[in-house]
Formats: sequence, structure tokens, C-alpha cells
Amino acid sequence: MAHNTHVPADTQAPPITSILARFVSTHASRGWSDAVEHEAHRTFYNWLGCAIGAAHHEAADAALAAVAMLEPAPQASVLGRTERVDMASAALLNGITSHTFDFDDTHLKTIIHPAGPVASAVLALAEQRGASGREVIDALVLGIDVACRIGNTIYPDHYDRGWHITGSTGMLGAAAGCARLLRLSEQKTAMALGIAASQPVGLREQFGTMTKPFHPGAAARAGLTSALLAHHGFTASPRALEAPRGFVQVVSDKRAWHEVTDELGERFEISFNTYKPFACGIVIHPSIDACVQLRAQGVVPEQVRSIELRVHSLVLELTGKKEPRDGLQGKFSVYHGCAAGLIYGRAGEEEFSDAVVNDPQVVALRNKVQASVDDTIAEAAVDATAVLIDGRRVHVRVDHAIGSLERPLSDAQLESKFNDLVVPQLGQAKAQDITAACWRLAALADVRELIAKCRP
Amino acid sequence: MAHNTHVPADTQAPPITSILARFVSTHASRGWSDAVEHEAHRTFYNWLGCAIGAAHHEAADAALAAVAMLEPAPQASVLGRTERVDMASAALLNGITSHTFDFDDTHLKTIIHPAGPVASAVLALAEQRGASGREVIDALVLGIDVACRIGNTIYPDHYDRGWHITGSTGMLGAAAGCARLLRLSEQKTAMALGIAASQPVGLREQFGTMTKPFHPGAAARAGLTSALLAHHGFTASPRALEAPRGFVQVVSDKRAWHEVTDELGERFEISFNTYKPFACGIVIHPSIDACVQLRAQGVVPEQVRSIELRVHSLVLELTGKKEPRDGLQGKFSVYHGCAAGLIYGRAGEEEFSDAVVNDPQVVALRNKVQASVDDTIAEAAVDATAVLIDGRRVHVRVDHAIGSLERPLSDAQLESKFNDLVVPQLGQAKAQDITAACWRLAALADVRELIAKCRP
Repeated sequence: MAHNTHVPADTQAPPITSILARFVSTHASRGWSDAVEHEAHRTFYNWLGCAIGAAHHEAADAALAAVAMLEPAPQASVLGRTERVDMASAALLNGITSHTFDFDDTHLKTIIHPAGPVASAVLALAEQRGASGREVIDALVLGIDVACRIGNTIYPDHYDRGWHITGSTGMLGAAAGCARLLRLSEQKTAMALGIAASQPVGLREQFGTMTKPFHPGAAARAGLTSALLAHHGFTASPRALEAPRGFVQVVSDKRAWHEVTDELGERFEISFNTYKPFACGIVIHPSIDACVQLRAQGVVPEQVRSIELRVHSLVLELTGKKEPRDGLQGKFSVYHGCAAGLIYGRAGEEEFSDAVVNDPQVVALRNKVQASVDDTIAEAAVDATAVLIDGRRVHVRVDHAIGSLERPLSDAQLESKFNDLVVPQLGQAKAQDITAACWRLAALADVRELIAKCRP
Repeated sequence: MAHNTHVPADTQAPPITSILARFVSTHASRGWSDAVEHEAHRTFYNWLGCAIGAAHHEAADAALAAVAMLEPAPQASVLGRTERVDMASAALLNGITSHTFDFDDTHLKTIIHPAGPVASAVLALAEQRGASGREVIDALVLGIDVACRIGNTIYPDHYDRGWHITGSTGMLGAAAGCARLLRLSEQKTAMALGIAASQPVGLREQFGTMTKPFHPGAAARAGLTSALLAHHGFTASPRALEAPRGFVQVVSDKRAWHEVTDELGERFEISFNTYKPFACGIVIHPSIDACVQLRAQGVVPEQVRSIELRVHSLVLELTGKKEPRDGLQGKFSVYHGCAAGLIYGRAGEEEFSDAVVNDPQVVALRNKVQASVDDTIAEAAVDATAVLIDGRRVHVRVDHAIGSLERPLSDAQLESKFNDLVVPQLGQAKAQDITAACWRLAALADVRELIAKCRP
């Protein structure tokens, strides 16, 4: 029996629950640079597109059918659909849809997808209350800062252990954002964080199933309801995050407390958020990018004898499925991603449909992709060589994939991605209308003006 | 940075998710001995008394106010109150109240309080569906078996690490019970367990706050909603419990897989359930019992110079609060528990009121209690000596406290405990009526007949 194999308790941890509660409850509205403010709008916009795009996915249908059994009051909208449900269920559903395509934002330092839990909770609460766009942006920036700073504190050990860090830190970000929106006191904000701390969501074993996108949804619901409980005087430990049997020490052997406090209120983690050009796990992006570049250099599938990839170990660990059987599994297959990149020059949601994953041409090319782990290759990089039937070798080296911090998507590229997701659901006119409203979100007097546009 | 300090992944684990799903979905109704059947009734009855007893506690009021913000549909009852809420919220609220007094049942092998998550979820769903008492008992026995067998698999490492094991296994028991009640297929039952596996609830740091009883409540809600999701086709990993990044391996370094399969369907963990005579954590019970015995031997508070306890280390670790300030903190103070036992000869909910905890006579006696850890003392035992002012020493040794498996409460003692809890809430007549209905629960055609009696 392995008893007490974990590292010793740290009894000297700084009071990070109180520190974060003070920060969230007292930091000035729009107390950050123009760059941070713009990044918050990009984060929200990208998240909204992902949520609307997957609004009618079978995962959303199943979750909505389950929620309907609770006969929810029509308080908040399921984005991209006509249904309205209670705000906690709306947080759940929009959190699910926003992550269903694996197309949402990524805080690369921690692989957290922060908007899913935070924006889903905040917007549902904001709709019910008729909050302003300014309040939503403030809650989003602060909530994401909380989730990602806790992520920085415990990553990578927490993730290595098997937690899906998006859902297992996201409930804290959602609680923080909702506490801010409810204007909870510092003391009640600490309680909201404490209640949320008891509810981490997410196992990496669920990757490839509907329960993966359920994680940010359930984290959003947990964070929102934690803030409601705190609002009404429900109590938790004021040291729930840092105590020896508090969240951080229970779920991680890494406890870099300084990550919470370093430049708090000056450096905002949303600055390090990125947006995916490809609808799948971030670790395959360099490989897909490389294959898109091979295609641009004239390599065509018929000429290919093999594609040889040298990748970071995490690529095969997370996305090593050799024979994906459907679209969802395709997202966990670097082989499929490369085939899509080379054949279509893109890897949007359409390229991860069941039909494309089972297309004979795609399957044939996928089987020619070979990936080997190379310890000299960084996580953000790939070394790819197309070996052609005529013996030629075409080589591409990607150090930073498109969509990375070093090569971010432009606002125009984000709009193009948004349209790809939203136009099929709502049409061109509404997509444009929503886009315009999103870029001026901070100026909206009532977010319900925007939310109404997201209804078919 | 502590990276990968946890024990290596076990890739050879048996398919316990499937094994439990098959068991829950196919085991015969009342497929157990009369003793197990009777214990199930005792478990339900004790749980119901605890829930009704705390129905108007401030934790219940705060939680209900938060739930009211979701404008819930009146699907299921908050036991002991007039309010009705959606069934997921009813599961949450009844889970909270049933654990608020720390007076509920205990599976001693794991310190799990199994009825809180399982009965709260099952009864809320049963009320909404008009299920029979037979169905409820079946779901309760099977759900508790799942939670406690998983507990056996990971206890004590999981608990030592800081998880409040009641909430961090309870969502599995609740999911299993609700899946059974919904008559889900084996495959969908596996999905329900899988969805629930991503939602463990509970940190030991919360002990002494409202978030402690929140844990079984949130676990009940998580398990119930997991079953609803699975019912509608939501998917999870069919290896969510046993995979290297599944529940067991993520939350524990102990993985005694055989605990799931040994005598499955023959030995039922509900057989090992116990019921507390004292309204506080089980680890103080031997000490309180000893003080009640000292009182019976004629020791009176005025004569006492000191009470010297020799206890297991867990007693001070969990209940070492020297100066509790209110009733809730009193439950985590072996010093207060002993003072109550010696003064009142009992330690029911009343003796853990704010007033009693701050009573000068109680405080004075509490300050005379000294506890030291003795490695030769078992968790279930205590060695207590009253040193009197006149120099006499009165010694009591308790090997198994009242309420243990070796010295269980009789049915009559359970009824007395139930009445103490329920009569102040609902009156003598209703308490008797509910008691009669509980002892013949398996014969009730519709549990709503019983639930109606629980309304003031």
C-alpha cells in the first residue's frame, strides 16, 4: 500500500485565497493597458464563435435534453439556439459548446482553455442581471487571471497527474468572475473561491469523449453557483486554496506560490492567451502548420510516399491515435491532422467531421504519416519531411505554429474563423452584426443586446 | 519543481468501470440477505432524520437562497421544509442538510458518510418520477456499494492527501443509484459513472465550514445530473475509473483494485454502515463515550481537576480545536465533546449549539481536558482518566465506542435519535408517522407518500 507517498505539506504558504479575493473585489474597472483590453475582446469573440459553432452538436443536444429534465426557468440563453435555461445550466451548456470543437483559446503556459469556464459563467450571470459589457470584460479579465495564475502555480505536475487543467482550475476563474459581477465583498469573494476550490472538474482520460467539453461547462456551473452561495452567506475555509489540505496541495506536488503574487494587477495572464487556427488540440498545430506549408510548396498527396515527423513527446502522448474512427477521435490524431493539412490546406471543424475522418483519400494519406519523438524538439515546434514517390524530400521546420504567441492570428483571421463557425448557424448578416457588437463589447450598456443577436 | 513525483501509472488495471456498470444495471432487485435489507432501512431512516433535523440550519437557508436565484421548478422536496425545487437542487440541499450536524452514517472502513450523496440523489429523482420504495432501496444499496468499494480501493492514501472522501467518492455512488433508478442499460450506466468520475467534490481543509456538508450535497447533484446526461446519450470514457489518467489513479497512489471485485454482489458494503450517537466527527466518539461513562461512574464536573485522554493521532489531527468559538467548530474539538459528555451525558445536536459551546461551565471543563497521542491506541479506542480535585483517579478504557460495528445502535436507539432530530421540526405525530413509513419503505408503492409526511 502506497501510504503518504506525496510530498510533505507546506505549512508556510502565503494567503493566496485572501490575496486573490482582494484583487478580484478591489482592482479598478479597466485597470489595465489597451493591449490587455483588446486581448479580452479577442478572447470573448473567439469563445463566442466556438460556442455558437457547436450549438447543435450532438453533445449539446444530449446535455440540453438532460437539463430539460430539470424544467429550467428561461433566465439565460444557450448561445446559437433558441432555448433559454436557468443561468447555471446556461453556463454548463455554453461551456460545453465552446470547447466541443477543441477550437477555443489556449493559455499556452498551462494549456488551460480559460474562456470556456470563465466567459460561460460570467455571460450567463450577466444576461440574467442585465449587466453591461464593461462589467463582463472586467469579470473576464480578472476571472481568467485567477484561473491561469493558479494554473501557473501547479502546472505541469497537476496536468501530468491526469487532471484536465481547464476544468480543474476553471471553477476558480468562474467563481472569481461571477463574484466580481455580483460585486461581492472581499470576504465573500474569498468564500466564493473557497466553495469553488472543493469542486475541480476533469480527468484527461475523458479526452475523445463528450465529457472533455463537459469539463469547462461543469467548471463554469460550479463557479457560478459558488458565487451565488457566497452571496447568500455560505461559508468556506478562507485558506481553501493554500492550506495543507486545501486545493493546491491536494491536487499538485508543485506549489509555486509566487505565480499568484508576481506582478499581480500589473501583468495579466489574458495577455498570454492564443487562438487556434485548427480545430483540435494545440499540440498538433505545429504538425498541421508544417503540412499546410508542405502543400504551399507544391507537395500533393498523390506524390507522397511518407510524411516523417519529429515531434515533442506530448504530441504522441495526447494525440497519438493511429486509426481515429470519427471526428472527435480525429482531433486526437496527429496523423489525421497532417493528412487534412496537406489535402485541404486547413483543419477547421469541417476537416474533423466523421465524413472527412473516414474519407478513403484521407485515410490513405494518414497511414503514410510517421511520427517519432525527438527530445530536441520543443512543444511548439515540429520537424517535417515529405518523402515523395520520386525520391525527393521536402523539408519544413516550424518553430512556432500559426496561432502561437509569436505568430498570433490577426483580428481579420479571427473574424474569418468566427465566420466559418457562425455563418452556417446564424447566416452572414447576424455573424457580421455579432462581430461588430463584440468589438465594441466594453461599450454595451446591456449585454442582452448582444445575446439577442446570437439567437437563430 | 516536483515533476512526476507520483507513483507510476498502472496500465494493467481491471475494467472496474464496466464491472460496476454491469453490477449496478443487472443485479437482482433485493438480491441480498434480510440483514442487508434491514441495514438499508436503518441507513435511510438515519439519513432522513439528519436531513429533517438540519432543515432550517443557516447553511440550508443560505443554500436555498442561492438555489432560489435559479428559479427552480418544484420537482422535489427540501426535506423538513415546505419548499420544492428542481430535483438536482433538491439533491444538493438534502445532501447538505443530512451532513450539517455531522450526525449521519459512517462506513468505518473508509470514513465515508455514504447516505448523504447517494440517498439525497436517489430520493430527489424518485420523487420526481414517483418511484417505489423498492426501487429506492435497491438504488441505495447498489449506489452505496459503488461509493464504498471505490473508497476501499483508494483509502487511506486518498484521504491522507486531503480529499473529503464522502464527496470525492459520493458522486459515483449517486450516479450509480440514479442510473439504477432510471433503469439505464449497462453501457449507459458506465457512461454515468464515467461522467461522475470527472467531478469529485471535497477538501478536508473545509472542515468546520458550511462547505463540509456542501460536499455530499454537491456530490449528490453531480451524480444525479451525470445519470441524466448518460440517459440522453452523453458519453464518457468507459475506463474513466481505472485508466492511468482516470479517477482512481489521479486521486490516489493506493489502487487496491480487488476491493471492487471481491465478493461483488455477495458482500454488501452497506453491511458495514454505522450510525452516530453523537453529533460530531466519528473520531471523537470514543472520547465522548468515555466521558459519558465517567459521568455514569459518578464523576461530576465540579470535582474534576483534569481529564487526561490518550488518543489515536487522527483525533487531534481532525478534532484538535482547543478553543471552538461556535457550534460548528465545537464538532471539531475533542475538548468540547468530552466536556459535553461529562456534563450532559450526551452529545446530540443541542450540545453542539453556539450557546452550549460558549457556556462558561462547558468552557471551564473543556479547558481541563488534556489529550495526548498514543500510538498504541486504535482509532476506535480511547484511554481516559479523570483526575479529581481530591486526588482520586477514575479510569475508563473504551475499545469500541457506542455506535461502532461492535456496539451498534439498536433500532430503538435509532428511533430515539430520530425523534430528537425530527420532533422539534415536525412534531411528535409526524415523526411517528415517518418512522412507521421508513420501516416499511420497501413496500411503499410511491415514495411521495413518505415525502409528503416530511413537510411541515
